[in-house]
Amino acid sequence: MKHRRLLMIPGPIEFTPEVMRAMGMPTTSHVAPAFVDCMGEALERTREVFLCPGGQPFIVAGSGTMAMDMAACNLIEPGDNALVINTGYFSDRFGAILERYGARVTHVKAAVGDAPPLDEVEAEIKKGDYRVMTVTHVDTSTAVLTDVKGLAGLCNKYGILSVVDGVCSVAGEELRQAEWGVDIVFTACQKAIGVPPGLALLVASPKAIEAFENRRTPVGSYYSDWTNWLPIMESYERRTPAYFGTQAVNLVWALNVSLEQILAEGMDRRFARHRLMSDAFKVAMNALGLRQIPVSLNKAANTLTAPFFPEGIHASVLPMIAEAGVIIAGGLLPEIRDTYFRVGHMGVVSAADILATVGAIESGLAKAGYTFEHGKGLAAAQNVLLK
Amino acid sequence: MKHRRLLMIPGPIEFTPEVMRAMGMPTTSHVAPAFVDCMGEALERTREVFLCPGGQPFIVAGSGTMAMDMAACNLIEPGDNALVINTGYFSDRFGAILERYGARVTHVKAAVGDAPPLDEVEAEIKKGDYRVMTVTHVDTSTAVLTDVKGLAGLCNKYGILSVVDGVCSVAGEELRQAEWGVDIVFTACQKAIGVPPGLALLVASPKAIEAFENRRTPVGSYYSDWTNWLPIMESYERRTPAYFGTQAVNLVWALNVSLEQILAEGMDRRFARHRLMSDAFKVAMNALGLRQIPVSLNKAANTLTAPFFPEGIHASVLPMIAEAGVIIAGGLLPEIRDTYFRVGHMGVVSAADILATVGAIESGLAKAGYTFEHGKGLAAAQNVLLK
Repeated sequence: MKHRRLLMIPGPIEFTPEVMRAMGMPTTSHVAPAFVDCMGEALERTREVFLCPGGQPFIVAGSGTMAMDMAACNLIEPGDNALVINTGYFSDRFGAILERYGARVTHVKAAVGDAPPLDEVEAEIKKGDYRVMTVTHVDTSTAVLTDVKGLAGLCNKYGILSVVDGVCSVAGEELRQAEWGVDIVFTACQKAIGVPPGLALLVASPKAIEAFENRRTPVGSYYSDWTNWLPIMESYERRTPAYFGTQAVNLVWALNVSLEQILAEGMDRRFARHRLMSDAFKVAMNALGLRQIPVSLNKAANTLTAPFFPEGIHASVLPMIAEAGVIIAGGLLPEIRDTYFRVGHMGVVSAADILATVGAIESGLAKAGYTFEHGKGLAAAQNVLLK
Repeated sequence: MKHRRLLMIPGPIEFTPEVMRAMGMPTTSHVAPAFVDCMGEALERTREVFLCPGGQPFIVAGSGTMAMDMAACNLIEPGDNALVINTGYFSDRFGAILERYGARVTHVKAAVGDAPPLDEVEAEIKKGDYRVMTVTHVDTSTAVLTDVKGLAGLCNKYGILSVVDGVCSVAGEELRQAEWGVDIVFTACQKAIGVPPGLALLVASPKAIEAFENRRTPVGSYYSDWTNWLPIMESYERRTPAYFGTQAVNLVWALNVSLEQILAEGMDRRFARHRLMSDAFKVAMNALGLRQIPVSLNKAANTLTAPFFPEGIHASVLPMIAEAGVIIAGGLLPEIRDTYFRVGHMGVVSAADILATVGAIESGLAKAGYTFEHGKGLAAAQNVLLK
């Protein structure tokens, strides 16, 4: 049990009581009329949350990595050139997945905390004959935010299929799939989508589906193959039951509840709330003297923050922060893992959560012997929240 | 909602209140100490439920098809000869998956309702140079049961790796992985394992792991690749957190609760209870004049029954049976889909469930205009249950 501790890691996050009640509802058949309606509705709402009215949504049992797998294996054919905009751990992973399905992969990589500038990416595009570009919108390992709008613009200019790993961004970070012309966006349900882990969500543009339909070679993976899943998703949306793999019934109930709550807030208000919560938290960390991994604010995610430990403080402070009531995450990027920590602030995150988290971090830092003006982080956050 | 209707399909099934409570527990981090303990325990208990003390368990977010994918892609290398013991829908699917990963597939197929005899299988083995054999223990589409012990014996005699699709059998049907020498057994959690859908479970013998470690080519699928998952499973079992894909935290809580309940009953008593429930239900169907797809009782599963509709009755009787309080499933095998129905009786199934189900079927049949002695099915079932 997590008891009453606040879970402020970059997923799983805090979920609403309504979502948790759906998790425990009596399981129906995956072809029961009520479930067919629920799944159909969840698909329609996924399209709305991704801001991609003409897109084809997929909801499948699996983790975020399964969604990466699905994106890569359905688009890539052996010998394709793929460009990875590399901002950390999950971009490295995407490179490995693309290679597994036969792509020749080139990475445009920035220093830790930075994202490659558009002109550097464009120069690389001009050198190679790229068919696919992948972008990690928010790298969960470093909190670096990429310029998806700008990168998708380059893809459209040069006729490249764009794939955005939105695992730590969708439903939190501003991401307008249709307007920005992104071909595939995917996420996992335990992030800003707000559902306990176990579902992969993906929306493909008509161009991505067309590219898939024109494949000359079979898809490398069987489980992730759209040949199997596309008719199922279409069928559920027509409110007709269909079977390929058994849907994760209770997770889909919970997803449908959460998507309804997300759309009730509205995407623009939701993006603005995430920006506000992030600003308040980041200002608080600055006030406490903690630097962050992203090199500048416009390269920093709004869904999480990755501050360095201050001088003399180590990961041993994390249990002290947990003791003060808030669970945050350690570092993930191997080369600097022990020098920083990560705080997720997405989904239903509120001003109260931000203040509780800043307070617990102050408490932990004080106990660990770090010298600072107590309450300074809290006051800084509150000043942003009440502006 | 399913209201108070009894769910008697071949999965998802009825789950215990303790399992459902775990589904709705506050989600923790996938690397929280309490979750690490839970995942470690669930892995150990999976090994016990599969009766494979020396095996390597895997628990991964996905459906049963994902487990098939994992078994196939980790064992098969392009050009391998694979023999599919084909007893229906799911054997056909296994053939397609094996081919996807480069196998040359031969099917030994019996007529609908039958399973290929051992001597026919042995004759085929002598003709080809087979590396892998797949067996569907219980074909969920027809309720046909295969002789896994005999077939695994042949595999061991001829040095073939044996893979058993135990989706509708593990934790219900007698299956002794280590004693019978089966190399891979897998299932999905919503069947006799007793957890809402979303998890794939697989146990690999030391020989299967060795075959994987000696591969000359990379695994075809990235998400299902043991290279990614094996260190994670080993790590959780050592009670050390590890990350590849985020575990489906709440489903794993629920799984651990259900595995504990299964082991508290004991595997031998559990197998015996499934046989008794199945006998009672099958005798009742006979008493009502309904023939079944399996050609004989020793080729019929104990986890589900697949009776033909009697003369003059069609699938339109299913809603009438649901109206009487019990949800059962329609046919699945394309060529005879509309001529039969399917009733799952596995997991926590009790004598009360069997009687309620027989009673609802009698009620539906009476309403649909079928002539029979009311109560005859119930009496027949009760005579078996009280023997």
